Amino acid sequence: MQVKKIMLLLLVLMVKQSIAQTGARPNIIVFLVDDMGWMDTSVPFADSIMPLNKRYHTPNMERLAADGVKFTNAYAQPVCTPSRTSMLTGMNAARSRVTNWTSPNKNVDSDAKDDQFEPLNWNRNGLSSKPGTDRTVYATPFPQLLKDAGYYTIQVGKAHWGAAGTPGANPYNLGFMVNIAGHSGGHPQSYLSEQRYGNMPGKAQMQAVPDLEEYYDTNTFLTEALTLEALKALENPIRRKEPFYLNMCQYAVHTPIMADPRFVQKYYNAGLDSIEAAYASLVEGMDKSLGDIMDYLQKKDVARNTIVIFMSDNGGLDHHQRGGAANTHNYPLRSGKGSVYEGGIREPMIVKWPGITRAGTTNAQPVMIEDFFPSILEMAKTARTELPQQVDGRSFVPLLRNPQALVTARPLIFHYPNKWINIPVGQEARFGINYYTAMRYGNWKLIYRMRTQSFELYDLSKDLREANDQAEGNKETVKKLALLLGKTLKERSAQMPVEKSTGKTVPYPGEKL
Amino acid sequence: MQVKKIMLLLLVLMVKQSIAQTGARPNIIVFLVDDMGWMDTSVPFADSIMPLNKRYHTPNMERLAADGVKFTNAYAQPVCTPSRTSMLTGMNAARSRVTNWTSPNKNVDSDAKDDQFEPLNWNRNGLSSKPGTDRTVYATPFPQLLKDAGYYTIQVGKAHWGAAGTPGANPYNLGFMVNIAGHSGGHPQSYLSEQRYGNMPGKAQMQAVPDLEEYYDTNTFLTEALTLEALKALENPIRRKEPFYLNMCQYAVHTPIMADPRFVQKYYNAGLDSIEAAYASLVEGMDKSLGDIMDYLQKKDVARNTIVIFMSDNGGLDHHQRGGAANTHNYPLRSGKGSVYEGGIREPMIVKWPGITRAGTTNAQPVMIEDFFPSILEMAKTARTELPQQVDGRSFVPLLRNPQALVTARPLIFHYPNKWINIPVGQEARFGINYYTAMRYGNWKLIYRMRTQSFELYDLSKDLREANDQAEGNKETVKKLALLLGKTLKERSAQMPVEKSTGKTVPYPGEKL
Repeated sequence: MQVKKIMLLLLVLMVKQSIAQTGARPNIIVFLVDDMGWMDTSVPFADSIMPLNKRYHTPNMERLAADGVKFTNAYAQPVCTPSRTSMLTGMNAARSRVTNWTSPNKNVDSDAKDDQFEPLNWNRNGLSSKPGTDRTVYATPFPQLLKDAGYYTIQVGKAHWGAAGTPGANPYNLGFMVNIAGHSGGHPQSYLSEQRYGNMPGKAQMQAVPDLEEYYDTNTFLTEALTLEALKALENPIRRKEPFYLNMCQYAVHTPIMADPRFVQKYYNAGLDSIEAAYASLVEGMDKSLGDIMDYLQKKDVARNTIVIFMSDNGGLDHHQRGGAANTHNYPLRSGKGSVYEGGIREPMIVKWPGITRAGTTNAQPVMIEDFFPSILEMAKTARTELPQQVDGRSFVPLLRNPQALVTARPLIFHYPNKWINIPVGQEARFGINYYTAMRYGNWKLIYRMRTQSFELYDLSKDLREANDQAEGNKETVKKLALLLGKTLKERSAQMPVEKSTGKTVPYPGEKL
Repeated sequence: MQVKKIMLLLLVLMVKQSIAQTGARPNIIVFLVDDMGWMDTSVPFADSIMPLNKRYHTPNMERLAADGVKFTNAYAQPVCTPSRTSMLTGMNAARSRVTNWTSPNKNVDSDAKDDQFEPLNWNRNGLSSKPGTDRTVYATPFPQLLKDAGYYTIQVGKAHWGAAGTPGANPYNLGFMVNIAGHSGGHPQSYLSEQRYGNMPGKAQMQAVPDLEEYYDTNTFLTEALTLEALKALENPIRRKEPFYLNMCQYAVHTPIMADPRFVQKYYNAGLDSIEAAYASLVEGMDKSLGDIMDYLQKKDVARNTIVIFMSDNGGLDHHQRGGAANTHNYPLRSGKGSVYEGGIREPMIVKWPGITRAGTTNAQPVMIEDFFPSILEMAKTARTELPQQVDGRSFVPLLRNPQALVTARPLIFHYPNKWINIPVGQEARFGINYYTAMRYGNWKLIYRMRTQSFELYDLSKDLREANDQAEGNKETVKKLALLLGKTLKERSAQMPVEKSTGKTVPYPGEKL
């Protein structure tokens, strides 16, 4: 009898320990915003509070930053699909050859036509989980590894990883067990439930948001509907006491810039024009979603074991479809979405890992969207096993554990051998848009313009705005960095455009020096 | 040391037992076909092989029937949403007041206009998991109970439980953890991937099938795409060793009757016209889906612990949109979809429960779609707990365990106080369509025509075709049955239509006798 009791006690202890060990694998949420710029928040990511920080209201980002660590030098690619692919696969865009946004339709080149360069044979169908899919990069996304390791994996909102007619169009093929509203489309046809998020009979286009019929005509803004669905999906792993991964991808703040009626009035009152007021309301609606999710985690008592990572996929729009004064939308950063200037690539990033990150701290180490892959696997204690892809990202977990950790410099590559929009060549140069590749290395930023095979050089520690090109006076540095950039691109088999007139491929930077 | 060893052994045994207990909860698949008639199969459900059994090729149904038990007196309501609601809630349609098919749009009455009767205030928005939803029946569906009990619950294909703008439009609100292609729509806009299942830019209607972008333009027939998605979804609970419930709802064989190119040629060769050949190909494509799922269960070594239940939601179309000779499509049954005659309500039903059902047997006990609710909960060893709804269904599990089990007679109610289609009143009477209520009790079938408050009586044991009305010669039986039907309807608070001319509600059958 006594032995039996002891054995039972032992059993209970062992079971408890086993539960505790399972519990020790943290839940992870990536809250990924679309087209949100570095300045589109009341959280200052620059060294001081900027005017735009006063315009926007993001109290929940403030709350997350107060609880976690703010990365002030976090990067993504200039447009969305390359960033999203890098995040899921750990590959830099130069390697994935997903260098532009993918059309929802298969084999459609989203590049604008160009006089100087031939169309590029990039991976325009995006990411695929199956080898041999035409014009895709084949890779194993980390959600697949998390799922295999027992995580409950959920995708909510914008997916945009692959074109219709290919496996990447379906998040179920990329390791997600649940998908809500994610598909081949890269923006919502409408944010309004009264317009059924685009699903109007006879009017729906490929960007009509799927899966939200419950909210049709209920006066529920898209951002809110996605939040409600995310909470519904989270209920399952929480009830089952399983670790979860939530890929929370708000369609906001991507165009169409439509007013979120819950928040827009205050921005009208502040004197913003209708477009900018609508934009600010999209930002605040997105922020509410973040807050609702954090509240839910607390209510369900899982906040203390849940990592929340806030990120955006490229810089804020600056060049068109915006209101207010022209080209001020990411100030003090130069340019915006589509550009290799900081306005196009620097992102608001915040990480809260209860028990690990130190509340209210800042980290200025450069990190990048492809770092999410190894970081999240490390957080989840999940081995990479054999991967078809080579991972370029580096885990930022050591920086979370020890903010003073020494990290060796490495090249961060922004590769865009594509044509985003049709603008005059002079404007391209001014905005850093179309046919560029760039590298951040330490505080240096080297920019290579493919059209002219010319360089710009900026010292970001002194010139965040990239206003003073240092290339002329620092030829040795340019040469050294150009060789590094060229070597890195070559190693990653990066694509370069081909001159129509000569049929020759633009050389990698440094090849001609 | 010795004690430690014993304790470990004990632990292992206990864990094994616990796994075995969990494993003992069977997986359950309901394979629910849309608009499939009792004769749309090569499996004979009548006492002998009928001509239509020779027309259709359903080798996988044959396989399932050879392995399981065929219910030859299985019933549903005359149209789909009432049946689907009954299945999920255990409520008879008379009680749920979901007596007609729901429009995908909220508050839209799908009833045709009528000269004699006022529009009926039925639950036209369908089923809701939330109390107080306008014009819905509030109930807890069994998938919710299964989910709460640890089942991994999956919905694939047609849902059609509730209108857009209400919770029932979203299978996630009805207890499903995964939903693929189920929404408020009740039929597919197209079966063809080349027509993107209806999601053509500028042409999509509410019946465009969601979630299948992966298959656009890949020459994948809808039936096949849904099968592939179902197998993908099943992989998760199988890998996790969790019991699962799959609600596999093929959109086939509902209109639009489009040829499944994989199978249609043989039906052309057999001399069928293009519509009937297409219909037969839809049937065979649906059957392949069943076979692929059964093959997958075997491949994954879970077949021996998986119950498969085959069912349809109403009778086959007979009155319009069909080819061939008129009104022959459910022969020897009279009429078809929409009718209270056997052609509209008798369903092909097969159950295979490995280790329980006896291979290749037949059971002639009357069972009904609302019986699925208590039966599946019993199979899953899941308690009902407190339900907002009253359950009319009765478990057929005793019939599976013991085919000779004595069952007491009970009234099976088919209640249709609605107007399905606009046809001349004379045709309504001929086909048993619009404003009918009917009851099977033992071998008797009593039919009450609301328009005329008149009765028909058939003895199904002798007159399966319902050709010889026995009402005139059996007034006492009519009276007895009418009182029972009326009493049952009253008990279930069934709705009856209101005469426009008098404002009076049609009395329940028996009230005036």
